Amino acid sequence: MPSSSDNKKYILGIDGGGSKTRAIIVDASNNIIGTGLSGPANPLHGFEQAINSITESAELALKDSGLAGVQLSDLIAGVGLAGVNLPALFEKMSNWQHPFDRMFLATDLLIACLGAHDGGDGAVMITGTGSCGFSYVEGHPYILGGHGFPHGDKGSGAWFGFQAANHVLMSLDGLKEKSLINEKLLALLGVTDGVEVVEAIAGKPAAYYARMANLVFDAAEEGDETAKAIVAEGAGYISGVARQLSTQNPPRISLIGGLTPRLMPWLDQNIKDTLAEPISPPEIGSVIFAQQQLALL
Amino acid sequence: MPSSSDNKKYILGIDGGGSKTRAIIVDASNNIIGTGLSGPANPLHGFEQAINSITESAELALKDSGLAGVQLSDLIAGVGLAGVNLPALFEKMSNWQHPFDRMFLATDLLIACLGAHDGGDGAVMITGTGSCGFSYVEGHPYILGGHGFPHGDKGSGAWFGFQAANHVLMSLDGLKEKSLINEKLLALLGVTDGVEVVEAIAGKPAAYYARMANLVFDAAEEGDETAKAIVAEGAGYISGVARQLSTQNPPRISLIGGLTPRLMPWLDQNIKDTLAEPISPPEIGSVIFAQQQLALL
Repeated sequence: MPSSSDNKKYILGIDGGGSKTRAIIVDASNNIIGTGLSGPANPLHGFEQAINSITESAELALKDSGLAGVQLSDLIAGVGLAGVNLPALFEKMSNWQHPFDRMFLATDLLIACLGAHDGGDGAVMITGTGSCGFSYVEGHPYILGGHGFPHGDKGSGAWFGFQAANHVLMSLDGLKEKSLINEKLLALLGVTDGVEVVEAIAGKPAAYYARMANLVFDAAEEGDETAKAIVAEGAGYISGVARQLSTQNPPRISLIGGLTPRLMPWLDQNIKDTLAEPISPPEIGSVIFAQQQLALL
Repeated sequence: MPSSSDNKKYILGIDGGGSKTRAIIVDASNNIIGTGLSGPANPLHGFEQAINSITESAELALKDSGLAGVQLSDLIAGVGLAGVNLPALFEKMSNWQHPFDRMFLATDLLIACLGAHDGGDGAVMITGTGSCGFSYVEGHPYILGGHGFPHGDKGSGAWFGFQAANHVLMSLDGLKEKSLINEKLLALLGVTDGVEVVEAIAGKPAAYYARMANLVFDAAEEGDETAKAIVAEGAGYISGVARQLSTQNPPRISLIGGLTPRLMPWLDQNIKDTLAEPISPPEIGSVIFAQQQLALL
């Protein structure tokens, strides 16, 4: 069995998000030896749920690793979470009597950026359910957008879905031309008229709208003019975010998040030319963050 | 004291809305003899509150009338409410053990239209916190828009406020030019940066956004290009609603609701030329509705 000081060489990386939490354990040689997946961990939407998801995903990763005699209390944890950019939430999470040897807490944006650029300086544009730009250059974090849905997060999955629903309602009222979006959206929601569309979407959260994003890209790729205009507007915003981030002089800029493969072809060519492939996912960014913090001690 | 059959000649008109309920009592000669004002009466957002507001406003109107020996149970009530276009809510309201001699129930749209056109056929565009188009021609009701906030209700107070907040967040991120809207909106909300704007607006209902509508019109009238573009888009939608309503051949079309004085100057000239002054407010429309229903018996 490894000695206690050996055990401390295992690092846990956590990427806690609004719908799921990923955990990863690496050994002293940075080999991935275990992974775990659990539910939501956004402390803004539920502190208890967040800490439960973090603990559960860590336990699953530890079990997956097959390490004998190693406990959560042996692990150094790097934890990246949405919401902890708010000082009150950062403090609440920091005061958590966590089960780890030590916990280093960072925002979801920072760990995504550290992962994408293998711990180096850089910038990321994250487009999934929401959208946000972030750069980290010479220790200086800079956030762009990410204001939330529906008032912000342009170019996100939720934004594309919202535009689609908006278009369908207007065109069913005869106030806009119908488009390929109409049949695709009605089919996805399983409804036939505007009243049913409203019943389906009213009061729904961002994740619900984000389900409708792909059909906008599908319609655009089939040549639908309305869909192309929506995609051009959303992609234009993301291109604008990239330009604005580049004023911070990040050595690398990456586009990450679930909408990346759909959005990428529609970005401005000169933006596409400057984008770098993300190197590692956010949970590796959490490991890197913990390692950087340890090195500072 | 008037006899019991005399008492039955008083008609109560109720206009129940999302923020307040207006009651009015008219005598047999259609003279207004009392008015009352109470809280919200949208059964979709609270059945108990709705029936309490209706009863309270009616009691206040009765007290205001100074009629001696007349009870709520003597009144014929015409009641116009949002939400009762949904069959389930119409039935629930109809089954209410109301305190009146008799109650005739209609949608808020129908009573607004009947009021605006003194009981005759016609159409209305209602632009206040929300927006909606409605026509009533030869017994046929036709609804346009009114899908709710934020996914619909373009050209409404909430929509203008939403566009303003959206613009300010984008421009504070450096992704759009600043405009006169910025300083006006920050001053109204009493905040200084984008994070505070988001804290102020996130999750807020339509009425909160509607507070920001006037500043967009103010900025547009001062020549601000961004504000002019927003106003042109919203007013263009309302002009489109008017054109679409005119396909129903209503003898008269009116623009009503709290945003009317701000929006009117920006409508297409050929639309403005066709608009008729509304004759009476919605609570009179409720009285007219009750009288029409009585005549059918």
